[in-house]
Amino acid sequence: MQKPSIPKGTRDFSPEEMAKRNYIFDTIRAVFHLHGFSQIETPAMENLSTLMGKYGDEGDKLLFRILNSGQFMDGLTPDERATASSLDIANKISEKGLRYDLTVPFARYVVMHRHEISFPFKRYQIQPVWRADRPQKGRYREFYQCDADIVGSESLYNELELIQLIDEVFRRFDLRIRIKLNNRKILSGIAEILGESVHLTDMAVAIDKLEKTSLQQVNEELAEKGLSETSIRQLQPILQLSGTNEEKLNKLDSILSSSETGRQGIREMRTVLELIRPLSLQAIVELDLCLARGLNYYTGIIIEVKALDAAMGSISGGGRYDNLTGVFGLPDVSGVGISFGADRIYDVLNSLDLFPTSIKPTISVLFLHFGPADAAWCQPLIQSVREAGIPAELYPDPVKIKKQMSYADDRHFSHVVIAGETEVTQGQVTIKNMLTGNQLTVAAADLVSQIMN
Amino acid sequence: MQKPSIPKGTRDFSPEEMAKRNYIFDTIRAVFHLHGFSQIETPAMENLSTLMGKYGDEGDKLLFRILNSGQFMDGLTPDERATASSLDIANKISEKGLRYDLTVPFARYVVMHRHEISFPFKRYQIQPVWRADRPQKGRYREFYQCDADIVGSESLYNELELIQLIDEVFRRFDLRIRIKLNNRKILSGIAEILGESVHLTDMAVAIDKLEKTSLQQVNEELAEKGLSETSIRQLQPILQLSGTNEEKLNKLDSILSSSETGRQGIREMRTVLELIRPLSLQAIVELDLCLARGLNYYTGIIIEVKALDAAMGSISGGGRYDNLTGVFGLPDVSGVGISFGADRIYDVLNSLDLFPTSIKPTISVLFLHFGPADAAWCQPLIQSVREAGIPAELYPDPVKIKKQMSYADDRHFSHVVIAGETEVTQGQVTIKNMLTGNQLTVAAADLVSQIMN
Repeated sequence: MQKPSIPKGTRDFSPEEMAKRNYIFDTIRAVFHLHGFSQIETPAMENLSTLMGKYGDEGDKLLFRILNSGQFMDGLTPDERATASSLDIANKISEKGLRYDLTVPFARYVVMHRHEISFPFKRYQIQPVWRADRPQKGRYREFYQCDADIVGSESLYNELELIQLIDEVFRRFDLRIRIKLNNRKILSGIAEILGESVHLTDMAVAIDKLEKTSLQQVNEELAEKGLSETSIRQLQPILQLSGTNEEKLNKLDSILSSSETGRQGIREMRTVLELIRPLSLQAIVELDLCLARGLNYYTGIIIEVKALDAAMGSISGGGRYDNLTGVFGLPDVSGVGISFGADRIYDVLNSLDLFPTSIKPTISVLFLHFGPADAAWCQPLIQSVREAGIPAELYPDPVKIKKQMSYADDRHFSHVVIAGETEVTQGQVTIKNMLTGNQLTVAAADLVSQIMN
Repeated sequence: MQKPSIPKGTRDFSPEEMAKRNYIFDTIRAVFHLHGFSQIETPAMENLSTLMGKYGDEGDKLLFRILNSGQFMDGLTPDERATASSLDIANKISEKGLRYDLTVPFARYVVMHRHEISFPFKRYQIQPVWRADRPQKGRYREFYQCDADIVGSESLYNELELIQLIDEVFRRFDLRIRIKLNNRKILSGIAEILGESVHLTDMAVAIDKLEKTSLQQVNEELAEKGLSETSIRQLQPILQLSGTNEEKLNKLDSILSSSETGRQGIREMRTVLELIRPLSLQAIVELDLCLARGLNYYTGIIIEVKALDAAMGSISGGGRYDNLTGVFGLPDVSGVGISFGADRIYDVLNSLDLFPTSIKPTISVLFLHFGPADAAWCQPLIQSVREAGIPAELYPDPVKIKKQMSYADDRHFSHVVIAGETEVTQGQVTIKNMLTGNQLTVAAADLVSQIMN
């Protein structure tokens, strides 16, 4: 006899949790539709050739690999069998992996289906992804992503649209947020004027940690990664740039005046911020020069969303990538996208008690029964309640009424219907409103109207 | 440069396909709710100890296994590395597999969460499953199942409810169906009176093929499996039993009079058929003694659904199992369930042209633009259309109007809004109805009411 368990880092979702999760997914989906995004789905398994090398060396290690079927060891030489490393053997005995995010499968989709797609292509995708990360609080090995991307257009109106979309999603959740923006081109410009372009990625990774750690530690990491003392000193005023978005951009104007890339980044930021200004967003929009985001494929504006009233990492993030499909043979397709983290949003809404109370259907009816006669009598009535669009069911077993009532409580039925011998004889039913406790006996024909009353 | 592909037997779903698939899922989900089923979800990965041995030897071979992370070869002895079979090595280097169906994970869920569950527990689950089967037309390695089960009640009202639910789902799809019923106890009774109880499973598997193959071939298989010539001869009249459901049951009464199990099966069938009679179902309900269904865990009534107007295997099926959770340490929990095959239903609805034509949102608006001035002018108008609940978006690039219009066609927008220099100066917009071709210029303030008109 086995004591069952589930793999670490994975979860079951109960009916109560599903109701809340569906509230999140349905809200996001509705806003995606309102902005003209269309849904696609891709397979859980992708070829490893599609996934490998897209998420850095660390990402490759976090891929869940699928073992080839059948006599998978037959492809190995005796020598390989005896001595090859686990990694080398893995590459021989597995060809498929579980998707790690929705962006790379989407890039693969765009390339494979480019002749059916009308560009700019606005797609959304809500599916689970898997990462063999060490599980910890708030970090799972299976979790859902909700992504919206626009590919095939370089216009900054797309960035504007994503910012509006973010604002609308969190407005519907009644959650106050800060949208942090930066531009990879500004970061490139900074690295360029420091003479540290070769260290751009290391620099971005280090300063991205400024929010969670101290300036001291960031500086130590920068030195470790090989940035010169002079560069680190010159970087300090930039990292500590303060003031309004406009003030920051004005200071950057002079700092980056000698970098064409940097100036381009500033221009893009100005354009987007000017487009946003008249829109009276609910969110606070802030230029944050320390925002870098880890993923290498971003090339333009980057976006990250934080909840104002909860201690939680980013609950949404994204940015522009100029050449995501290039690796699959389709160059020059620029795109910009945003991803919502359903699990973190769930935790934030829960901690702030922001889930609507009426997630459960407001009306639902349980018919009790004590034997075949009244169960049979109830059948057409159950049918008529369902035909009115109201969930209805018969308690299936003729057990004691106390047990049936306690089930009605547990399942949160709004009404219970009882048809005992007296009622059946007189063509009546007794209805108990479980919210008020009121009970009344009516003609069977009036059941539906009485319940909907 | 890689030419991207996806693993064989898997599929991408385009926006058009997703709209149709969501129509199927949403319809089934609505009927599940109407009948009081609550949704749960379980992880894609389960421990292999949960999955193995539940689907027979064939099923075990069809499980997709996840390779352990890290130095997975370290657990093998040099001898095992050199000589162990692929299967033995697989058991050492993989602990998790992708779920093969939704029933076994559900049984595992019930046992793990039994203290939170109020029985009878009515759950539904709509998630993909994975099988390393040889892909062929209509058979995929990743496909969705839509399952509804009731556990913790032995009442035949549950069987009745599932039959009503099936009828309602296909009524909403406008699809004519035959619901075939049988009872494992009747099959057990038949094996018993033939003195072939040890061959029950082989017998069931063989006669289940009668629909697809000839009686001759079924008899050959029965002989191969070890049924005696006498038994096979005695079985013939039973396999060819004809008439109404009542006539079949009457004949079975005498055939199975000496088998207590068989008589119990007949009683259950009679009860369910009597409960169905007054309900005026749309479906044809037929007792089919050759219906056996492959899965070993069924112990009572079994159900299978066929479309009347399309050549397709069963599009839904299920049955009662008396001890599904026993293997996980929780005995005596009886359950009954039904599974809808979304992919086959999709193919049937497609072939009969039964998808509603208005799956796409009826109204949606594309704003064209020619430069920053009119794009900025459009922003508050786009916002106002969205606030009215109508999907709206700006074509993001200031390209030729012909290209923008062709995009509007491809994406099936119902309206296109143009605000050129003249319109902007006069506070107007030009609206083109893409269905009628009509075009008119109105005050910007009247845009929403004009579109909703």
